[in-house]
Amino acid sequence: MNSFGMLFRISIFGESHGECVGITIDGCPAGLPLTAEDMLPDLERRKGGQGKGTTPRKEDDYPLIKSGVFNGMTTGFPITILFENKNTRSEDYDKQRSIPRPGHADWVAHQKFGGHEDYRGGGHFSARLTTGIVAAGAIAKKLLMLGVSYHGETSPLTIQAFVTEIGGDNNLEQGLQKAIDAKDSVGGLVECRVSGLPVGLGEPYFDSLESALAHIVFAIPAVRGIEFGTGFAAAKMFGSEHNDAIEDMEGTTRTNHAGGVVGGISNGNELVFRLAVKPTSSTPKEQNSLNWETGTTEDFTIKGRHDLCVALRAPVIVEAVTAIVLADFMLLHQQIKRVL
Amino acid sequence: MNSFGMLFRISIFGESHGECVGITIDGCPAGLPLTAEDMLPDLERRKGGQGKGTTPRKEDDYPLIKSGVFNGMTTGFPITILFENKNTRSEDYDKQRSIPRPGHADWVAHQKFGGHEDYRGGGHFSARLTTGIVAAGAIAKKLLMLGVSYHGETSPLTIQAFVTEIGGDNNLEQGLQKAIDAKDSVGGLVECRVSGLPVGLGEPYFDSLESALAHIVFAIPAVRGIEFGTGFAAAKMFGSEHNDAIEDMEGTTRTNHAGGVVGGISNGNELVFRLAVKPTSSTPKEQNSLNWETGTTEDFTIKGRHDLCVALRAPVIVEAVTAIVLADFMLLHQQIKRVL
Amino acid sequence: MNSFGMLFRISIFGESHGECVGITIDGCPAGLPLTAEDMLPDLERRKGGQGKGTTPRKEDDYPLIKSGVFNGMTTGFPITILFENKNTRSEDYDKQRSIPRPGHADWVAHQKFGGHEDYRGGGHFSARLTTGIVAAGAIAKKLLMLGVSYHGETSPLTIQAFVTEIGGDNNLEQGLQKAIDAKDSVGGLVECRVSGLPVGLGEPYFDSLESALAHIVFAIPAVRGIEFGTGFAAAKMFGSEHNDAIEDMEGTTRTNHAGGVVGGISNGNELVFRLAVKPTSSTPKEQNSLNWETGTTEDFTIKGRHDLCVALRAPVIVEAVTAIVLADFMLLHQQIKRVL
Amino acid sequence: MNSFGMLFRISIFGESHGECVGITIDGCPAGLPLTAEDMLPDLERRKGGQGKGTTPRKEDDYPLIKSGVFNGMTTGFPITILFENKNTRSEDYDKQRSIPRPGHADWVAHQKFGGHEDYRGGGHFSARLTTGIVAAGAIAKKLLMLGVSYHGETSPLTIQAFVTEIGGDNNLEQGLQKAIDAKDSVGGLVECRVSGLPVGLGEPYFDSLESALAHIVFAIPAVRGIEFGTGFAAAKMFGSEHNDAIEDMEGTTRTNHAGGVVGGISNGNELVFRLAVKPTSSTPKEQNSLNWETGTTEDFTIKGRHDLCVALRAPVIVEAVTAIVLADFMLLHQQIKRVL
Repeated sequence: MNSFGMLFRISIFGESHGECVGITIDGCPAGLPLTAEDMLPDLERRKGGQGKGTTPRKEDDYPLIKSGVFNGMTTGFPITILFENKNTRSEDYDKQRSIPRPGHADWVAHQKFGGHEDYRGGGHFSARLTTGIVAAGAIAKKLLMLGVSYHGETSPLTIQAFVTEIGGDNNLEQGLQKAIDAKDSVGGLVECRVSGLPVGLGEPYFDSLESALAHIVFAIPAVRGIEFGTGFAAAKMFGSEHNDAIEDMEGTTRTNHAGGVVGGISNGNELVFRLAVKPTSSTPKEQNSLNWETGTTEDFTIKGRHDLCVALRAPVIVEAVTAIVLADFMLLHQQIKRVL
Repeated sequence: MNSFGMLFRISIFGESHGECVGITIDGCPAGLPLTAEDMLPDLERRKGGQGKGTTPRKEDDYPLIKSGVFNGMTTGFPITILFENKNTRSEDYDKQRSIPRPGHADWVAHQKFGGHEDYRGGGHFSARLTTGIVAAGAIAKKLLMLGVSYHGETSPLTIQAFVTEIGGDNNLEQGLQKAIDAKDSVGGLVECRVSGLPVGLGEPYFDSLESALAHIVFAIPAVRGIEFGTGFAAAKMFGSEHNDAIEDMEGTTRTNHAGGVVGGISNGNELVFRLAVKPTSSTPKEQNSLNWETGTTEDFTIKGRHDLCVALRAPVIVEAVTAIVLADFMLLHQQIKRVL
Repeated sequence: MNSFGMLFRISIFGESHGECVGITIDGCPAGLPLTAEDMLPDLERRKGGQGKGTTPRKEDDYPLIKSGVFNGMTTGFPITILFENKNTRSEDYDKQRSIPRPGHADWVAHQKFGGHEDYRGGGHFSARLTTGIVAAGAIAKKLLMLGVSYHGETSPLTIQAFVTEIGGDNNLEQGLQKAIDAKDSVGGLVECRVSGLPVGLGEPYFDSLESALAHIVFAIPAVRGIEFGTGFAAAKMFGSEHNDAIEDMEGTTRTNHAGGVVGGISNGNELVFRLAVKPTSSTPKEQNSLNWETGTTEDFTIKGRHDLCVALRAPVIVEAVTAIVLADFMLLHQQIKRVL
Repeated sequence: MNSFGMLFRISIFGESHGECVGITIDGCPAGLPLTAEDMLPDLERRKGGQGKGTTPRKEDDYPLIKSGVFNGMTTGFPITILFENKNTRSEDYDKQRSIPRPGHADWVAHQKFGGHEDYRGGGHFSARLTTGIVAAGAIAKKLLMLGVSYHGETSPLTIQAFVTEIGGDNNLEQGLQKAIDAKDSVGGLVECRVSGLPVGLGEPYFDSLESALAHIVFAIPAVRGIEFGTGFAAAKMFGSEHNDAIEDMEGTTRTNHAGGVVGGISNGNELVFRLAVKPTSSTPKEQNSLNWETGTTEDFTIKGRHDLCVALRAPVIVEAVTAIVLADFMLLHQQIKRVL
């Protein structure tokens, strides 16, 4: 289904070339000051068109709050937010339809939904659906900032995600230039760090903090891997190297190979995880793949302008889903009140 | 909470040094032939004591089926399975209690549960809880084998996980010997491959196949990362390299960088994912960490025998959780019947 | 939270005097023909203004389908439907605010949401929220009609609810006239009957058919009781009277005191249940209750026109929630396909 | 599925004539003192054999706590409790199998589970499964007593259910005697009252307090109806009669026709609801019903001793499910702490 979360629950809807995309946030505590403007900075970050590596589709991306806010405050009831779709050229997609685009969901969607899916621009699979997620993330961030009352004091909780590598290069400009020179799209790495997290979020096993974060992170299109702390490098280490010695009664550890989570539970140190983002499937390069109508493969090119590197758009979405998970867990663990 | 799954739902309980550990499987279709013996091969694989890198704790690990099976067949009602704990020496743990073991959940558990947790041998955090998961996995595997009736024919679905690297070495013996020589524990990589999977399992976004698998995989103690298909290497690739060209009307792709999942949905190619497993936290090496009673750090050694490389135990657990996710999705997608 | 259902899941949002009310339906199978017009007949039935006992608030109540429908067919993705609020006079409510209306949620809402609730016209508590539920019910009904393929044949499933009693009188005109004469509102009884239901829907205990129906029926404002089959009268009977003798191999019973559900499971006979609907809380009569500002009780009158008997609006809503429950259970029990 | 609850979650398993029945309680806060003895008084009340109207099956019904309790306190992890089945005579049931007992689930179970159900003594459908529910209820009651810290003070919350009528007679002895004289079973009414409930439990619509209570109440075998406050009688009333005038700033109402719930939310007044319990299906009277083997109806008698009036056993179960719902809601609304 298209929902996530127990107590801070998001539900997305809409299609890339339908009337709108949107989200409903259910469970946001009452009394949080909220206006459309609160979401604009993160929505701007998500929007393409500013830098080299992202597409120029310039929708207003203005969040229309349809419910759940009264007199500038959340009411405790569901918040539904719509984003109108304006700048859509469906014809491009109709033309391309005979060839299910490699790396995209065209083929699986057609098989799974019997041809009833809205195929225009990826339909419900489109990354445009992340607009709502970013809006919900902005609300969750506000909630975490204002609402946190852990052990009686406001925790200076900060969430920051950023691209650390493009095309294997940690000079991001250079990595991107390689793709531009190759007339190709390119992948990248994104890292997320959260500081100020209270101890005790998460459960062993199925509701571990890693489980929840990994679950929602793989909802972001193009994510292919996640690792916490030292992650894959831990597979090469000795135990004596990897173990984080506890240094004081607050649980501060000498190193942070665990990335802030032990036994599925936050340990009060910085939460650190990294994501692998694949190159944009819509590459400018000529490709060879199946033509559904002829039943044979053929060469083709995807028209239109697309992001060279979707990883560049990912950080604000990664921050959003992280904030959503943390808001959910902090409500569950009674570290955020139901009425602020 | 300690449950996972929508329609094939598992719930674990028990503590390492309590009376037993166990699991309840709710939603298993009626009419599946099932005896304790069906689970023994996988339980044997999970059990320590056979090879170099695993601990010698030799419990019988015999599954006591307490409900849900009648006349050798599942009834459609909850199947509860217990494993008695026999070989437990709690005193060891009482002695060590003043120093929360680095890498273990001792410290977070104490903070989170206010000291009420059963600390003996990790209590509910113990990898012994995976016994039930392996039993449930054996049932899910049987269900997948017998119950699959996708498009009218029995699919030869196979799930196989194996260790591909120990301590950075893909000669596993050698990697393990390094740890033995260093008197230390060591990490490893585990790969899982599923063939014969029907097209169409999973949803875009929050119920993607990757989301579900990543969610449950991080329930396995010591897992620090997961990647699908090319995974982290995809972050270094161009789009034209990474895209898997579709070759025929069955959706067979020329390459399989996607690892069998596109848009969150299985595409009929082999499902491939890899896990990073950290070195066993209980290393034989001397460590330095906090003593709770004195409030200062001190040198100490963890007594008892422990796995040198927990990755060696992981494959059967990884297969189990994979089978559990697939059984759940195939029930949801009506590819397994409710009465066999 | 504001959602219901496992596989056919509805989520409501909106406020009586906000911009709109609406609903998202997640899990509706792909390939169901659907237009706004399909919902209009039921929406008309729900709307006030036609008869003696219902209010004249005449909104268009036209369902704006925002997502999930493409080329006149459901896509398998979330269907979001909005209803704009047009005919709202908020001032009336501001004036009345000093006295929390007896029978309404004004007082509890204020206590629970710390005064952040949208109090205009009951806000999220308003029966206007049932507009979305009726729309979802119309979709569920279509799904049941077209999608049912129980044991290979289309079942002629019919759901009908009707008012059987007003003010204790089963001559409905007369019961209503009593209220008009008394210048008061009045309660009523609603009965719902479903024929053509397959055997086997529901589970023993927590997912019994009665549990699911009772759960959602109490989501309808003003419902105060539910009984199945003989219901409360069963408490006065002997077992030999109440037991329904089975007459043939199809499970047809001689009597139907069970109302079509035994052990939580449909038995193939007619499903029958009855609801008690309280009189409209907004009565034209003068009342005496607390004034929040003065802290003492005082006499007051509720302005505006309101339904004399909300039971009259209930049948279409009762049919809707029944259809929603049945669609959910039939998906769960694989009696409706995921792609039609 | 066989689970109920969000944050205080119960899962039942077992069969009447299998090895055991049991329950797992997940989400019980850490630090609640708990021993088997705490559950014995309520288990005694549930057990048959003491009075005139209940069966003499005398199992020890001693709760074997298998997990989740350490040093006499709950740990915060799942509590699994088993009850061994000792006093079972399966042969009786084998003999009776050719005639699916009217009023029992024999026929629907056979249809639904394809004959794989454990039919002995009703199997999973048996009221013996309520043993676990009563045990969980005893824990929930303790939690409510010790754990409630609403607005800083311990609320004197009390839950009491009792039989108010047998066979239409509110002289209970007399009602029962009528059944004994008629050599028949008989139905009854049960009322439940909760005082000391905080304001604000429940949500409008799908998570209303009535929805949750009605949901779980219909999980109790033999319940055929539920009404809150004035209930079915409200259908005959005028609004001016039914409305409960608020008398003071604490929300005390002059009357309590609402039964303590308005808009789905507790209003601080006494919670009152009533249940209709049908007569025991296993009546001593001769019956006429279908014989599966011959395909025709025939006269038969159910052997063995059975409760004349199951309503007599219901109160302790009704209290249990009420306590379970309240514990769940109070955790959700942060009125009970996660660590006591």
